[in-house]
Amino acid sequence: MAAKTKAVTKPAKGTRDFLAEELRRREHVIGVIRDVYAAHGFEPLETPTFERLDTLLGKYGDEGDQLVFKILHRGQNLVDGIRSAAAELAEPGVIVVGRSGETAPSVERLLADLGLRYDLTVPLARVVAEYAGKLPTPYRRFQIQPVWRADTPGKGRFREFHQCDVDVVGTASRVAEAEVCGAVAQALERLGFDDFEIRLNHRQLLSAVVEASGVAPEREVDAIVALDKLDKVGVAGVHAELVERGVAVDAATRLLDAVGGARGWDDLGPAVANVERGAAALDDLRQIEDLAAETPAGPRLSPSPTLARGLGYYTGAIFEIAVRDLAGSLGGGGRYDGLVGMFSGRDLPACGFSIGLERILVVMEARGMFGALDGAADVLIAPLDAGLERRCLRLARGLRAAGLRVEVAPGKDKAGRVRKSADARGLRHAVLVRADRDDAVLVWSREAPDVTDRWVEEGALDGALAPQRAK
Amino acid sequence: MAAKTKAVTKPAKGTRDFLAEELRRREHVIGVIRDVYAAHGFEPLETPTFERLDTLLGKYGDEGDQLVFKILHRGQNLVDGIRSAAAELAEPGVIVVGRSGETAPSVERLLADLGLRYDLTVPLARVVAEYAGKLPTPYRRFQIQPVWRADTPGKGRFREFHQCDVDVVGTASRVAEAEVCGAVAQALERLGFDDFEIRLNHRQLLSAVVEASGVAPEREVDAIVALDKLDKVGVAGVHAELVERGVAVDAATRLLDAVGGARGWDDLGPAVANVERGAAALDDLRQIEDLAAETPAGPRLSPSPTLARGLGYYTGAIFEIAVRDLAGSLGGGGRYDGLVGMFSGRDLPACGFSIGLERILVVMEARGMFGALDGAADVLIAPLDAGLERRCLRLARGLRAAGLRVEVAPGKDKAGRVRKSADARGLRHAVLVRADRDDAVLVWSREAPDVTDRWVEEGALDGALAPQRAK
Repeated sequence: MAAKTKAVTKPAKGTRDFLAEELRRREHVIGVIRDVYAAHGFEPLETPTFERLDTLLGKYGDEGDQLVFKILHRGQNLVDGIRSAAAELAEPGVIVVGRSGETAPSVERLLADLGLRYDLTVPLARVVAEYAGKLPTPYRRFQIQPVWRADTPGKGRFREFHQCDVDVVGTASRVAEAEVCGAVAQALERLGFDDFEIRLNHRQLLSAVVEASGVAPEREVDAIVALDKLDKVGVAGVHAELVERGVAVDAATRLLDAVGGARGWDDLGPAVANVERGAAALDDLRQIEDLAAETPAGPRLSPSPTLARGLGYYTGAIFEIAVRDLAGSLGGGGRYDGLVGMFSGRDLPACGFSIGLERILVVMEARGMFGALDGAADVLIAPLDAGLERRCLRLARGLRAAGLRVEVAPGKDKAGRVRKSADARGLRHAVLVRADRDDAVLVWSREAPDVTDRWVEEGALDGALAPQRAK
Repeated sequence: MAAKTKAVTKPAKGTRDFLAEELRRREHVIGVIRDVYAAHGFEPLETPTFERLDTLLGKYGDEGDQLVFKILHRGQNLVDGIRSAAAELAEPGVIVVGRSGETAPSVERLLADLGLRYDLTVPLARVVAEYAGKLPTPYRRFQIQPVWRADTPGKGRFREFHQCDVDVVGTASRVAEAEVCGAVAQALERLGFDDFEIRLNHRQLLSAVVEASGVAPEREVDAIVALDKLDKVGVAGVHAELVERGVAVDAATRLLDAVGGARGWDDLGPAVANVERGAAALDDLRQIEDLAAETPAGPRLSPSPTLARGLGYYTGAIFEIAVRDLAGSLGGGGRYDGLVGMFSGRDLPACGFSIGLERILVVMEARGMFGALDGAADVLIAPLDAGLERRCLRLARGLRAAGLRVEVAPGKDKAGRVRKSADARGLRHAVLVRADRDDAVLVWSREAPDVTDRWVEEGALDGALAPQRAK
């Protein structure tokens, strides 16, 4: 069973192993987010790692479908699938291998029946349909789980990463927007962020401004995609892209005049005065700001008339978290009234916010925002002579009962090596047990200079070390 | 995007959705286990959901390999794979579809490159090889993550389930056995188990008894597999199976005489007096019992001379957790010195214990061992008139700051309906906000009869509700 050759032992492309230190940081962030969401009365949800392909495909566009990891059929279904796939492969034009190496989905469907979760929204939609009678209305849930995308991995881009979603399903009330923004703002504040903005815009407002500027209806999506880049490429850059995408020159100019310099909703009033859904969107935004003023999101909201986000998806307000030192966003969300009902066969109003765990961690690490998290064990107990293992285990039990995290060395070692190892690993104390004293032990302590290198009575050991645990 | 037809919305076969109540129970159990393992100085580890197929296959036997969920190649690799697989399929005898629907692994390897984690031991072995220089020696880690097996699902058998593993890698010291058994015993006690046994045996002892009984060496595995069933089929049943498996009748009789009635190690002394590894194994077991006496495992250890467990795997002591009301075990483990070095190209002594989360939950639920876990929100705040949403959000903020979990209703509702909903969902309090009183709110409380159906000043609300939170 033990092959004695050195194998490839890196994790698979785009995935990561989390050793103790990094994992503790991840768990700290997840713990804070979970606690804040729970304090806001959101219920936890977890769904399976894989879903039926029927559930996943057709929801994320062709490009998204390609990025779903698909699980091979098993047994006879696989044999049949290979035969059918080979037959399709023989048909000219069925398989298209392009730039990004696409395979016709029809062929993949012959070989696979399951796929890895691509986001947390489609599983939410499935859950809402499946347990309709069991869930409270509105259903307020959070879900913090990994998702998988067969993307090309790169710096900060992984094939396995965590999303932290919080959503309210089943109400059109703007209390939902206020609550998800408030919960996200409080989570970020608890994590130590003091400089973030929640950029705010509205899908219908964007649409109305585009119409009012005289952009042809069939160019609306192009216009919004171009506008979203204003921060990056500036007015001239967006104008060029608008024209390149087929927007008339004068319409492009009017659109940029309308939103380019707008600092708040009032600046857009004239532009949308004649488009009804624009005025309704402005009312909506003002109501959200009014409600959010009572939540931690209040002072964070920043009107952002060019913010676009996930075009096909949102139907109302849209949000995005911006911090100075990250080009992308820490997360985003909005109202998406058409999506969650996809499996229920009925429209269900919904509003949510998704934070990217990896983004949060990148910024927190770059800024040194992690304080002293619990490290490895507090105490290493090591025997310096043979035959003392049992005594070490007894001491460990006592210290563990006093609330310390205690590691027992497997066998006899030298005092210097034990101290050095405890020091290098960031442990707080080492307890050295010698055969010539059966009532006391030698202590090394990073934190208590009055104790270090002294003999401490065994009965007094928890008193000498345990109080140091409280910060 | 929203297709208006009712789709299949159950989770995929063998997987489960976890709604709030069940998830809280799972998180409670995981939290207790994690805390106890951390108190024992074990470090957390998490590894990716999928591994290279090269990493996974060939480690679990042919049957295990079949049960690994495999992820379809993408892009051109898939096209090439289909062509090659179809060609192999045309060769007679390459694909074998049997009772359980096996496909030749060679064909699957053409179509897939990744597989879902099948257990937590192979990833541990990979991690130990990859980060050899970064990990402490011995490396004491715990890992609590889901694993996936393409098994036929059944009652209590899932395709996605959690394992909770704790292992010590890199020492042959029996302190490792004592520590993993002690940690497991303490975790079970903290969860409320007061009646479990840790059954103990030794792979080399089994082997020695079999040899001393005159069983032919090539029948050793058969003999041990048969012996393991003594609890289930009795002495006569095991004797019949031994003979059926090719063990000589008199050897079968001697073997059963040796172990069938043995209550402790002393009863086996004569049987292994002439087989050196048997005597060494007995020494080993006695040392483990001596060390474990200083841990919570001490009084739980139960000598079990017929216990066999995972034959190909273990090299020394083996353990298994037994409770009265579960036919299988809650978990098991042992020493497996050959396995973890599989990727390092060197033997690494190792010893560990794996608990099945689902097994624990089944027993705890059947026994009613879950006390009052945190439920949904503590408080539901609901407006009874229009236009009070902002006031509700302000009240929510205050109560959340006081440590209560608070849900805000999306809009105006009737008092009776709010009370009924709060009651049905197990919430502790409801706060009803009316337009005719701007200084006080109506309270309904499950827990505080002196407050319920009374007006409470807004400023006194946290005082009236928050103290109830402490039990």
